[in-house]
Amino acid sequence: MTNFSAFMIGAPHSGSGKTLLTLGIMAALGRRGLKVQPFKCGPDFIDPTLHEMVVGLPSRNLDLFMMGGSVCREVFAKHCRGCDVAVVEGVMGLFDGSEASTAALARLLNIPVVLIVDARSAAESIAALIKGFEVFDPELQLSGVILNQVGSERHVQLISDSMATNCRSRLLGTFPRESGFCMPERHLGLHMGDEHPLTEDQRA
Amino acid sequence: MTNFSAFMIGAPHSGSGKTLLTLGIMAALGRRGLKVQPFKCGPDFIDPTLHEMVVGLPSRNLDLFMMGGSVCREVFAKHCRGCDVAVVEGVMGLFDGSEASTAALARLLNIPVVLIVDARSAAESIAALIKGFEVFDPELQLSGVILNQVGSERHVQLISDSMATNCRSRLLGTFPRESGFCMPERHLGLHMGDEHPLTEDQRA
Repeated sequence: MTNFSAFMIGAPHSGSGKTLLTLGIMAALGRRGLKVQPFKCGPDFIDPTLHEMVVGLPSRNLDLFMMGGSVCREVFAKHCRGCDVAVVEGVMGLFDGSEASTAALARLLNIPVVLIVDARSAAESIAALIKGFEVFDPELQLSGVILNQVGSERHVQLISDSMATNCRSRLLGTFPRESGFCMPERHLGLHMGDEHPLTEDQRA
Repeated sequence: MTNFSAFMIGAPHSGSGKTLLTLGIMAALGRRGLKVQPFKCGPDFIDPTLHEMVVGLPSRNLDLFMMGGSVCREVFAKHCRGCDVAVVEGVMGLFDGSEASTAALARLLNIPVVLIVDARSAAESIAALIKGFEVFDPELQLSGVILNQVGSERHVQLISDSMATNCRSRLLGTFPRESGFCMPERHLGLHMGDEHPLTEDQRA
C-alpha cells in the first residue's frame, strides 16, 4: 500500500457530470493495471451499481448521517486494503447536506477533492466559481478541477488563463460537449447498472 | 436626481434568468412610480426590445469593446438624466468577456452588482459559488443576490443560512421554480419584444 492514493470526486451542483466522469476515471485507472476500490458518498444505491459495472468490485457506501464518522472511517480503511487507489464519488453539490456533505466526508477521510465543473454557459466566470469552492472551507483540500462540457479549445483557454491568475487548484483535464456521452436521468438519479444505461461503446 | 440610483444585474453564467428578472425588476420599479432607464451591457439587440416593452423607453447598449470606456460613461450619464433609477442588464457570466465583461462595465460606471443565481440542483454549495463571485474581484461591489428557481422554503433557508455564515452579500429576494415564467430560448439569445415572447399575464 506504499503507493496507495485516494480522492473524492465532487461538483458545485447535481448534474455536473460527477457519475459519468467518475466512471471514466475508474475505467482509466483500471486500464492502467491499478486495483480500484469504488465508494459512494451518501445512501445512493444506483451509482454503486454503475461503479461495479466498470470496476468489477462492489462499491461501498459511506454515509456520514447514517453511519457516523468512525464507522465511515472503518469501512473506508477496510475496503482500501489491498487496493491501489480509492475513488469516492460525492453526492449533490460539494457542500450540500451540511454535516453529511461530500466536503465533510473528504475532510473526515483526509482525502483531496477533484471538482467536476460543468463549464457550459460561461468562460472566465467559471474561475470565479472555482475560487468560491477553494476558499469556502479552508480545511478542505481542493486539489484539481476537471472541466466538463467544454465547447472548444478557446473556451478551455479562457477558463484556464483565468484559473492560472486567480485560483490555486490545477486544471487536470477537460471533457467535451458530446451528446453521445449523456446519461439518461430520472427523478433523484440515474439508472441502475443492470438497466443498461451505458452502451459497450460508452463504457470503452 | 438626488435620489438617483443605478445597479447592474449579473449572473454566474448565461441562462441564470438575468433577462426575466431584469424585466420583473424594471416593471416593479415602474409600478412604484419611478422613471426607469434601461441599459444592456454588450451589443445585444434582443434584450433591449424586451426592456422597452416593459419600461416604455428605449434601452441603451453599453459595449466596452466597441464604444470604449469614456463613450460608455457619456452614454450612461446622458440617458440617466431625468430618471430615478438606471437598471443595466449584464451579458453572459459576470466575468466573461474579460475587458468588456459585465464586471468591467460595473466597475467603470461605479455601480453595484445584483447577482441572479440559478439555485437549482444545489443548496449550501450555492453560498460557495456566491463567495467566489464576491472575492474574485475585490474592486467590484457585489451588493446583493437574488436566488432564481428556488424549490421550497427549506431550500431557501439552507442557502440563506449558509450565506449568512460565509458571504457578505445580502439575499435580496427569491423567485420560484415556475415553468409559466420560462422564456423560450434560441441560438445566442431570446426572442425580440415584437415577437411576443411574453404573454400579458407574464408581463403583469
